[in-house]
Amino acid sequence: RSAPGMISCPVCLDLYSEIVDSGRLVVSTKCGHVFCSQCLRDALRSSHTCPNCRKKLTPRQYHPLYV
Amino acid sequence: RSAPGMISCPVCLDLYSEIVDSGRLVVSTKCGHVFCSQCLRDALRSSHTCPNCRKKLTPRQYHPLYV
Ligand SMILES: [Zn+2]
Ligand SMILES: [Zn+2]
Ligand SMILES: [Zn+2]
Ligand SMILES: [Zn+2]
Repeated sequence: RSAPGMISCPVCLDLYSEIVDSGRLVVSTKCGHVFCSQCLRDALRSSHTCPNCRKKLTPRQYHPLYV
Repeated sequence: RSAPGMISCPVCLDLYSEIVDSGRLVVSTKCGHVFCSQCLRDALRSSHTCPNCRKKLTPRQYHPLYV
């Protein structure tokens, strides 16, 4: 559903517009992986690692992305 | 040149594909603003602030973005 350079969440597969229109944020981890805020929050509840690369990740190590 | 959710650099206006094809990285600051690595590096030489929102920014406060 996504092309290089297009923002989407690799967990729920929603595109940028679907993420933003539903009131979620697009967030980036410190390791550079992009998710919707809901999927990353859910993932961090069960494991303190990045869902993409599995690096250790605390709630302070990600931030909203303004694109 | 860009649409919401499409990655581009607001300084040189290059799109994601042009940035990556020329060997640059797409980077995000901690404040959530996205640039090509060349433009952000140039900007941080003259001022230690984000070119978009002017928040204080050190070289450790940005990271590559993998999209
Ligand atoms: Zn998601
Ligand atoms: Zn990661
Ligand atoms: Zn640039
Ligand atoms: Zn900024």
